[in-house]
Amino acid sequence: MTRLGRVARWESGAGERLQHTALALFAERGFDGVTVSEIAAAAGLTERTFFRHFTDKREVLFAGQGDFEQAFLAPLSAPSDGDAMTRVVSSLAGAVELFPEERRSWSRARQAVIAAHPALQERELLKLSSLAAAMTRALADRGIDPIAAALAAESGVTVFRTAFAAWVTDGEQRPFGAIQEAVLQELHSLVGRG
Amino acid sequence: MTRLGRVARWESGAGERLQHTALALFAERGFDGVTVSEIAAAAGLTERTFFRHFTDKREVLFAGQGDFEQAFLAPLSAPSDGDAMTRVVSSLAGAVELFPEERRSWSRARQAVIAAHPALQERELLKLSSLAAAMTRALADRGIDPIAAALAAESGVTVFRTAFAAWVTDGEQRPFGAIQEAVLQELHSLVGRG
Repeated sequence: MTRLGRVARWESGAGERLQHTALALFAERGFDGVTVSEIAAAAGLTERTFFRHFTDKREVLFAGQGDFEQAFLAPLSAPSDGDAMTRVVSSLAGAVELFPEERRSWSRARQAVIAAHPALQERELLKLSSLAAAMTRALADRGIDPIAAALAAESGVTVFRTAFAAWVTDGEQRPFGAIQEAVLQELHSLVGRG
Repeated sequence: MTRLGRVARWESGAGERLQHTALALFAERGFDGVTVSEIAAAAGLTERTFFRHFTDKREVLFAGQGDFEQAFLAPLSAPSDGDAMTRVVSSLAGAVELFPEERRSWSRARQAVIAAHPALQERELLKLSSLAAAMTRALADRGIDPIAAALAAESGVTVFRTAFAAWVTDGEQRPFGAIQEAVLQELHSLVGRG
């Protein structure tokens, strides 16, 4: 239900239309080569409608950060007697539903726009850093030692980031969950040799 | 010799005087409450001298990023047949000399100024992200698989960042190298349970 709800919201409505239109224009002319007014016109909507959905042009690419963080945080708040890393692994599993196959082409195009623009890369970096901080706090709130909480949360975000970069690489066909699981196993194998 | 050379450079010269003076003023009045002109005057120097050493006020807190990255990167370029994580561990060991005991009070005061100012926190985050990217490239250049290179480099920076935060905590007395070694062992123990 949750997943179907998410996909349905994604594919309909003015907000999603504006996001898809904006991304197509950014891909063609670069992020700085497109105005809000042009995005709204190309989507057949008014600027006023644009600003009802997004605070600014950048927000088109970064909307939904709350939902994004929540997908990682919800599994951390479930009762568990697992250690920090076990909990983070369940958090990563919870995030898999954010990236179904039908989203890959949008994510790939978004990543290309971001990669071409340093200020957008910074924003993406801050988003992931904010996620790691929120996960660290969530673990510490459940009684995990602060150092272990930080290490596990940062390791989890590293796995996510690395898996996501692979998922949107041209030609990569494995589903996001399979890639993330492989990256996690590689981290275990690399770092486990203490 | 290297370490003595570094400390000597640190304690003398107009650049260092400006850094210490600026930090004292920032600690008292906040980063935004101090001008370059006030820093120069308090150090008994001219604004022109300030701008010979730093491009702007923020640079006072972030000078030497090249040396900082180089301390991590130099061990990675040495010939080695170790795997990615073994190399990163030698990189972390190489960075220990950057943080001798006599630097702790400056680092602690700098951290307090940064923690109180979101734009400075972003700059610090970007500095560490840039370090992780440079380490990833250095490992990949030595033939390490890109995914392993990214995971090892990010894990190394996570260990450094976590150890550094502990080192500048009020009341912490262990040397930086000992803290970093303990954090690394904790990461091995947490993440090794694959």
